[in-house]
Amino acid sequence: MSKVTINCDMGESFGIYRFGDDEACMPFVTHANIACGFHASDPVVMRKTVRAAKKHGIAIGSHPGLPDKEGFGRREMRMTREEISALVIYQTGALEAFARAEGMKLSHIKPHGSLMGMAQREEAIAEGIADAAEIFGLPLIANADCAMTEVYTRRGLDFVCEFYVDLDYDDDGRQIISMEHPPVAFDVVARKVRRAVLEGKTTSIGGKDVSVVAQSICVHSDTPGALVVAEAVYKTVAELG
Amino acid sequence: MSKVTINCDMGESFGIYRFGDDEACMPFVTHANIACGFHASDPVVMRKTVRAAKKHGIAIGSHPGLPDKEGFGRREMRMTREEISALVIYQTGALEAFARAEGMKLSHIKPHGSLMGMAQREEAIAEGIADAAEIFGLPLIANADCAMTEVYTRRGLDFVCEFYVDLDYDDDGRQIISMEHPPVAFDVVARKVRRAVLEGKTTSIGGKDVSVVAQSICVHSDTPGALVVAEAVYKTVAELG
Amino acid sequence: MSKVTINCDMGESFGIYRFGDDEACMPFVTHANIACGFHASDPVVMRKTVRAAKKHGIAIGSHPGLPDKEGFGRREMRMTREEISALVIYQTGALEAFARAEGMKLSHIKPHGSLMGMAQREEAIAEGIADAAEIFGLPLIANADCAMTEVYTRRGLDFVCEFYVDLDYDDDGRQIISMEHPPVAFDVVARKVRRAVLEGKTTSIGGKDVSVVAQSICVHSDTPGALVVAEAVYKTVAELG
Amino acid sequence: MSKVTINCDMGESFGIYRFGDDEACMPFVTHANIACGFHASDPVVMRKTVRAAKKHGIAIGSHPGLPDKEGFGRREMRMTREEISALVIYQTGALEAFARAEGMKLSHIKPHGSLMGMAQREEAIAEGIADAAEIFGLPLIANADCAMTEVYTRRGLDFVCEFYVDLDYDDDGRQIISMEHPPVAFDVVARKVRRAVLEGKTTSIGGKDVSVVAQSICVHSDTPGALVVAEAVYKTVAELG
Repeated sequence: MSKVTINCDMGESFGIYRFGDDEACMPFVTHANIACGFHASDPVVMRKTVRAAKKHGIAIGSHPGLPDKEGFGRREMRMTREEISALVIYQTGALEAFARAEGMKLSHIKPHGSLMGMAQREEAIAEGIADAAEIFGLPLIANADCAMTEVYTRRGLDFVCEFYVDLDYDDDGRQIISMEHPPVAFDVVARKVRRAVLEGKTTSIGGKDVSVVAQSICVHSDTPGALVVAEAVYKTVAELG
Repeated sequence: MSKVTINCDMGESFGIYRFGDDEACMPFVTHANIACGFHASDPVVMRKTVRAAKKHGIAIGSHPGLPDKEGFGRREMRMTREEISALVIYQTGALEAFARAEGMKLSHIKPHGSLMGMAQREEAIAEGIADAAEIFGLPLIANADCAMTEVYTRRGLDFVCEFYVDLDYDDDGRQIISMEHPPVAFDVVARKVRRAVLEGKTTSIGGKDVSVVAQSICVHSDTPGALVVAEAVYKTVAELG
Repeated sequence: MSKVTINCDMGESFGIYRFGDDEACMPFVTHANIACGFHASDPVVMRKTVRAAKKHGIAIGSHPGLPDKEGFGRREMRMTREEISALVIYQTGALEAFARAEGMKLSHIKPHGSLMGMAQREEAIAEGIADAAEIFGLPLIANADCAMTEVYTRRGLDFVCEFYVDLDYDDDGRQIISMEHPPVAFDVVARKVRRAVLEGKTTSIGGKDVSVVAQSICVHSDTPGALVVAEAVYKTVAELG
Repeated sequence: MSKVTINCDMGESFGIYRFGDDEACMPFVTHANIACGFHASDPVVMRKTVRAAKKHGIAIGSHPGLPDKEGFGRREMRMTREEISALVIYQTGALEAFARAEGMKLSHIKPHGSLMGMAQREEAIAEGIADAAEIFGLPLIANADCAMTEVYTRRGLDFVCEFYVDLDYDDDGRQIISMEHPPVAFDVVARKVRRAVLEGKTTSIGGKDVSVVAQSICVHSDTPGALVVAEAVYKTVAELG
């Protein structure tokens, strides 16, 4: 992926529960990260989401999470490298079967929520994810300058670094995982995207300039102003060529 | 599979809980039906079970079940064809990923417990299973003369019929799914296998002769005398050539 | 409860997922049936819902369901009387602890979804529910003329019969459990309530007059027009005195 | 409890899965800590365990755990005080209902596995447990000299400190939570109990003397030599009067 892509977590509904408006976001997105039934989703939702992505012509990747629907995969759980590896293999394999059913192939793996958060800080978690990615031969989406990029680089794995336009960053340049994402205005989004892509910088919650790598921009489909954010990112990325 | 095979449900441990002695049974079995995390198992158990099967040189298939660990997939749940299809795709895809990690391929799909029981009686359930099998291009294990064989035959799907040596049959020739399997003696097993393979008959719980098709013999690894049963089946099948 | 009450299923959110607008409905309701973590909800949602009911001064009862969040308790599961009894005791006990934390007492038990549907038809299920109600000494909400009322009457248990204003009835007078409830207009609701209360009749989906007993009117908080329905019921019941 | 008591985690089977031999251990135990369906158990197992405890005339308390059956409540999960409080209320309420069904009352609350481990180190977790215990007015079982005892003491809550005879202690005097407990010989157990009760000391895994408070001795029912341990504790405590 040499040009900037736009990825979005999708298929996070579950049973009777709706979450986000995937189909409304799909026109503004290049890559869907599809939940795999652990932190959210179920087999029927996965199938529908893969079919919707196919209709919109966007790439699909697995979005594996911790086994905790009640916490939406946002509560850290102590797991071993072996457990992490097995849960990423399991979830990615399940999604791949739905892709195959539609004649599609997976394009990437992006860990969800606290699995991503833990992998940024802990080598064993990043290694577990890498173990799984190696089996599928799929590129990863990662955060810059963390345990993930260190491990992936050392092991020669393919990855792109992403910038979270709708999450805050702390003064160390880490995005802050929270249970809710506040809405962000079109102009603010456009400015953040331009700065992240062109200068590799964003402003932390403490007002500091922190480095980011924006090979892919991540948007969410469940925020109050999700569509505004997605459209702002899409148009800004298009302008930037 | 032109000669009689021996299949066994395996990998039904879960977390800290042990269930059956898979490794002890593997020498007497040709095909392992591996649980996929819904009625039993978890990603770590699945990985271990696939590795054990590889070590013993036996074929592996998916053993998808209803999403009910508390009931071990033995409590019927009302689900639609679409739900059944999606849950078989999901579970089989997850297992296939562990197979790929070991350089193995799946050899078959065999539904578990009440999913199998419902598919014997209800066309919509059998169709849902068939929908999934078609995507993977894998043969199914089925019971003779039921909705499954009717649906699979009509759709031109590959399947083998199995005989349950350690379950009872009712007077209509249906095996009785129960929460517990009583132990059976070596001689009794050998006699039942011989009769099922050579004559296509077994004695029902009501004392009637009922027809069975024994292209594959199913044994369980969790009964008190599981190893005796497995060895008896193995030796008898070997004798029969 | 000698006058007509209005009951509503509440607290059916789960983790990050919202379901229905409980607080908006509470002014129009006398009894909240609170989900207990099996078909929906979690401990934090239960606590919040009990607190909201206290603030609005409405009575609270347990709303136990089948152990199936993915199916929202609307997929029938084969369970024994002993299993049913234990799951109603478990869920009602859990809710009672949250009631006690707020200095409240439970006022009733109303089974959810397919647990209710099965109890209408099957004596063993109704007995299991009755076994649990007896332990708590709480009245039940039931449907008229079914296995529930037969079992509860025989055992001398206290119960009220309810009328579902936002569900359809079949020609045998049974309400139709579905995954979605279509919106109903104010006038239609008012007319249905008046007829059910005054005449003990409603019109089935097949156009027949079927008998109903409307000691309590059930409304839902998750339908598109839930508030319209709730307000229409509330005002009509108030008019009827 | 002025004299030394013996507590044991019980009711940790789940569905078809057996765990430990509760009935065999009950003669050697004074207090059963009964699992409540989150880290282990289900409503049917809870009911059976309460009935067994009644038959053996032993006291019962709740043994709430983290919502993670796959990890048996032994994998730490990041949860807030509000979440911890709600899950202890929920689980204890559920168990209390089974106690009431048998005419029994709960005698105590003892957190399980990593919930206990986290509460030793983190004040917010200990406060959440204390919030729940206050509602029930029940004494807690705790470890000496940790966040739990600090919080419970400050809030004026009743508690007893326990000594783990079949777990190892680290050099800071904290017991080491593990997925497996190795067997321990009768004499070793007897010596450890005597030393813990009379001297308030045990030997850490690093060979150091660390302080313990043995108002209650904890034994497990799932270790290979569980019965030997239980009997050794029982006889030693009896000797000590």
